[in-house]
Formats: sequence, structure tokens, C-alpha cells
Amino acid sequence: MSELLYVVFEAEHNSLVEVAYRHRGFNADEAAAGAKLCAEASRHGISTHNAIKALHLDHFFGTGSQGCVANVEIEEKPSRFAAAKIWNANRKLGQATTYAALEAAIRLADEYGVGMVSVDNAFHYLWGGGYVMEAARRGYVAYTNCTAALAEVVPFGGKYPTLGTNPHSWGFPTTEALGYPLVIDWATSVVAMGRVQQLLREGKQLLPHAAVDADGNPTTDPAAAKALIPFGAHKGYGLSLINELVGAFIGGSLPTIRNRGTNVSEGEKGTCCFFFQVWHPDAMAGGDFAQGRSQSENVKAVLGDVLGHGNEKCILPGQFEAQAAARCADHGGLLFSAAEVEAFN
Amino acid sequence: MSELLYVVFEAEHNSLVEVAYRHRGFNADEAAAGAKLCAEASRHGISTHNAIKALHLDHFFGTGSQGCVANVEIEEKPSRFAAAKIWNANRKLGQATTYAALEAAIRLADEYGVGMVSVDNAFHYLWGGGYVMEAARRGYVAYTNCTAALAEVVPFGGKYPTLGTNPHSWGFPTTEALGYPLVIDWATSVVAMGRVQQLLREGKQLLPHAAVDADGNPTTDPAAAKALIPFGAHKGYGLSLINELVGAFIGGSLPTIRNRGTNVSEGEKGTCCFFFQVWHPDAMAGGDFAQGRSQSENVKAVLGDVLGHGNEKCILPGQFEAQAAARCADHGGLLFSAAEVEAFN
Repeated sequence: MSELLYVVFEAEHNSLVEVAYRHRGFNADEAAAGAKLCAEASRHGISTHNAIKALHLDHFFGTGSQGCVANVEIEEKPSRFAAAKIWNANRKLGQATTYAALEAAIRLADEYGVGMVSVDNAFHYLWGGGYVMEAARRGYVAYTNCTAALAEVVPFGGKYPTLGTNPHSWGFPTTEALGYPLVIDWATSVVAMGRVQQLLREGKQLLPHAAVDADGNPTTDPAAAKALIPFGAHKGYGLSLINELVGAFIGGSLPTIRNRGTNVSEGEKGTCCFFFQVWHPDAMAGGDFAQGRSQSENVKAVLGDVLGHGNEKCILPGQFEAQAAARCADHGGLLFSAAEVEAFN
Repeated sequence: MSELLYVVFEAEHNSLVEVAYRHRGFNADEAAAGAKLCAEASRHGISTHNAIKALHLDHFFGTGSQGCVANVEIEEKPSRFAAAKIWNANRKLGQATTYAALEAAIRLADEYGVGMVSVDNAFHYLWGGGYVMEAARRGYVAYTNCTAALAEVVPFGGKYPTLGTNPHSWGFPTTEALGYPLVIDWATSVVAMGRVQQLLREGKQLLPHAAVDADGNPTTDPAAAKALIPFGAHKGYGLSLINELVGAFIGGSLPTIRNRGTNVSEGEKGTCCFFFQVWHPDAMAGGDFAQGRSQSENVKAVLGDVLGHGNEKCILPGQFEAQAAARCADHGGLLFSAAEVEAFN
């Protein structure tokens, strides 16, 4: 490794992060959920979504500005549909709400084959990949999306940021087939704003056509970047729209006022929405796998074919995250750069 | 319009297409479903998925090569999950199978809030957007994906085509809000092979980095294009993988032998899989819309915000398709180019 890394024992990391959340008034369960997701992000090399980002998010958009409220209960709304829950999160900490949604969706999937939880008045859940990875590790297919705390992305061909960078996160239970769960979890912009901030800290430049400046012109200077460009032109734009549409059906209001406290007038809403869905893999299995394979053996054979025929050097999504987790296990703790430790202190 | 267009009455179009399917041995219901989807594709300007493509597909991969079997029944597999159905399509015509899956998923969504149908031993369903558009027109959120008939896309950084171009298709019930359903339905490659064929027919060039030649080098010549490149690099690749993963969990086998009859040995499978899911919008509605809006009014307000602030010229996915349908309605029939009419004859 070319960079000096600090090893932080996970229990110490979690204690530190929990203390920071408790100090802000969160209860023990909320603080533990907050610390858990940060530890997962750090373990899997997701440095843009570690504890620094989580506490930064809480400071600017959470308890620091009424976007998130400490020590509250989720309200389950009435629903006539057995496999779908609708929750009012009452602006509870996003990580605590999402871990609860994950458990509820798994219970529904165990019974109905598929379960979904639509969450209104949520606070941002930080790293969608972490939750679907957990569901996948436990043997389920999972999908989630969340509206962004801030609109940072211009629609395809547009000038003004009205969409989030937020990913669609998919997890697949491939641990038996591959040794780790596949997690497909990508921002709908060419880069995430977290990455822009990381490049700024590291004194590096952006790729071309990843960001626009205040006048809507493309820029490669992370300090000048004011809004992001969707990946794949209209295709990333379409994915980005799905988050807003799902949020709008649940109860989310205008993306450009979300989490911008002073712009949220009486009768308006500035909260996020998220959607969480889990499928039981038995609820998809036709039972007719070629060559007498099991479902997992079949998944392994398909992935072997995709990365065969000269494609052996291609990477699977989730592979880097699994390698990062293996490095942490080797070092007996979570790994942070010197700059991260300094920022955290 | 710069191109001479022929107006074909829809009833005549459907009769012609039904006769072609009946001639191949399909029963009346199968032929009607086949014609209906082709008419929808033509009505919405999806010229790459019209009757020419459908009959071409049947000829090369369907009844012409045992990929599709005429006049068969779908077998419902046993499942312990109330909101999830698992079907063995027995290689029934894709359009007939998918319209049936759409109806089944809607019935499940009406009861459970969400319903999903996983289909093994399917024949390709042609245009995923057409089915989710129908579900959305009827008031539901719908999602589908299907494994490709042929692997045409290289994994990100790879050389050999092992993935399909097949889209993820999402439909949203926005007719009340916008006048038409939003349909987000994009191939996982920069362009679809249908588009390559269209450019070849029209004597036009491909975009750079959309396709590779037989040696794996990028090419802009549609005649030299042998495989496609995923859009958005690793991001389009990830979306493409989801189709194969979902298919692999259902019962699909190796993508590189699929629908390639001579490569499918004893004990192997060469059929497609598809997945269809429908959500009832009431099963997502938190009931707390800002400014006392209804759910549809809220969706309209969110989309108005996305396309406001200087973004007024941006296009919504589904908008071109709605405009094409309006042109057909004005002309009293389906519109075809001279080249298409000639190809069909």
C-alpha cells in the first residue's frame, strides 16, 4: 500500500462514534446503528461514507438543523397490503430507521416471498450499499433507493441541480457462490459529491464531464464544481429520476428545498424518503437448474461464464469491498488514512 | 417530418402480424399478444422492436430454432410464498407469457401491495418498456428485466461479449400528473444492437466507444461492430449483471450459450428468464403530502421542480413515446417508414 494507514479497533471506533451520537441526544439503539453502518463503510473501503461523513451530515442537515431528531419512534401507518409497510420515520436517525426497515422487509420476504417498506419523513441513510450487503450476507436479494439530502445533479441537458446523486443499491446473496455478496450500488452521477470533496482534500482533478461550475459549464476543478452531471447521459438521468419518483409517491416534496431548512416554508416538507425491498431467493427459484446444479452453483456458473472467454481480469461489483474487508480482518481493525484520522479528531 | 411515412391501420397491422404468427403454429391468444406488443412498439416510435424485429426474432431464435414453442401452456410451479409466483413458461411466445405475468403481478399487487413473477424457460419478450407502460397506464408502478437472447455486450474492461443489452424497464403511473406514463427503459449498452442494425440500414456511423469489432477494438462502423460496450463503464456493466443474476437465481444458464441452439448440449439450458414486479401506489403512500396535495399532484410538483429552474427544455423518459403515440392518433394508424414497409413485405 502506498499510503500510511492507521488501524482502529472496531470496538474503539464504535465507542467513539456512539459517544458522538449520544452527545447529540440520540438514544443507545440509534447511536449503535449509527456506529455500525460507519464501521461497515470503513471496513469495506467506502471512505466517502465513514464516520466523518456521518457526523458531518448530522451536523449540517440533521440534529444541527432539524433534519434529524434524536430519540424518536417510527410510526407505522395503516396499510391494507400484507407485504408492504408504510412508515413515518419522524426524522429518526437514518441508519437506525434503515436497519429496522431491513429487518421488517426480511420478515415480509420470509412470509410473502417479497416485502417492501416505504419510509416517509426520513433522514438520509448514508450508504445504501451497506444495508443491501447485510441483507445479501443473510441470504436475501435486496434493493433500496433514497432521495438525496441535497439536489446536486443536473437533469440531462439541464443547467440547475434538481436531482440527487443517490444510488440504486442492489445486493445479491452470492457468498456461497463467490465468497462475498455482490453489491451493485452506484451514484447516478459520474462521481459522487463525496468523491469531489475527497479529490479536493487530496488536491486532485475531476474527470471531464463529471461536474459543472456555477454557470453550468463543465469543470475539472473540484473547488469550482457546483453541480454534478449524470452518468451515461439520459440513462443516469433516468435512474436518478426513479429515486425522486419513488420518493414523490411515498410523500417526498420538492428536491430543491429538501434538507435546506430556511427554504422549507409552512406546509412544505424538507425530509427524505427511502424505499427498501427484499426478496427471498426461494421465491424466485424455478427448480430447473442446468446440469443438476443448486441455485448457488448456477449463479456461480453464470458468473464464471460472464468473466470467462478472455474477460478474466474484469472486476465484479462488491469485489473491491470484499478485498477491503479482508485487509481489515488481516490488520485486526478498521483502516483509516492519516487525513481521515485528523479530520475525525 | 423529413421522412415519408406510411400509415397502416392498426387492425390491418394486427391481422397481418397475427396471420404470420398463426402460420408458425401459434394459437389465437398467442398471436394476438404478439401483434398487440408490436402495435404498441410501433405506436410509441420504438422502431427497433416492431413487427419486423418480432418475426425476425421468432425466425432465428424462436420456432425457427426451438427457442420458442407454439401453442403451449405456462406451468405454475409450487411456491410457499403468497406474493411471488414462479412460472415455467415452457418456451411459450414471450409476449403472451409477459402479458399473463403482468396480469398476475397486478392481481398480487392489488392484494399484497407488491407482486412478483419469476419466469423460467421463457422466450424473449421483445420490448420490456411496453409492458411496464401498460401497467403504469393502468395505475401501477412496474419493474421488469429479462436475460438477453444473445450475449452482445462485453463486461467493463473485457473483450468477449458475455452480457445482454437488455434494459431494466420501470413504469410509473403519471398519466394523471403528466398526461402519459413515465417509462424508464434503457439498454445497458451505449446503444442497442437493434440501433446498430438500424444505422447499418440507414448507412450511418456509430458513436465512439459504443461497440467493439471482432478483435475487441472500438469501432464506429456498424458493419464491423461485433459486440457492444456498456454505458457508463462499470455502472452500465453493473446493471447488465443484474439481469444475469436475477436470471441465474430463477434458472437461467450460461449467457454465452443462450438461444444458440447448436451450443446447448444435453442437460444444459438455452432459454431466457424474466422477472416482472408490480407495486400498488397506495402501498407506498404515506398520506402526508406537502401543501395538502394528492399523491398525483405531489408527483407533478416534484417533476415540475426537477424540470424547473432553467431545466425547462429537458425531456422526461416516456415523453418521446407519448408524442409518437399522439402522432399515430392524429394519423389514425401506425406509422412506418418506406424501408420498414419494404422489410415487412
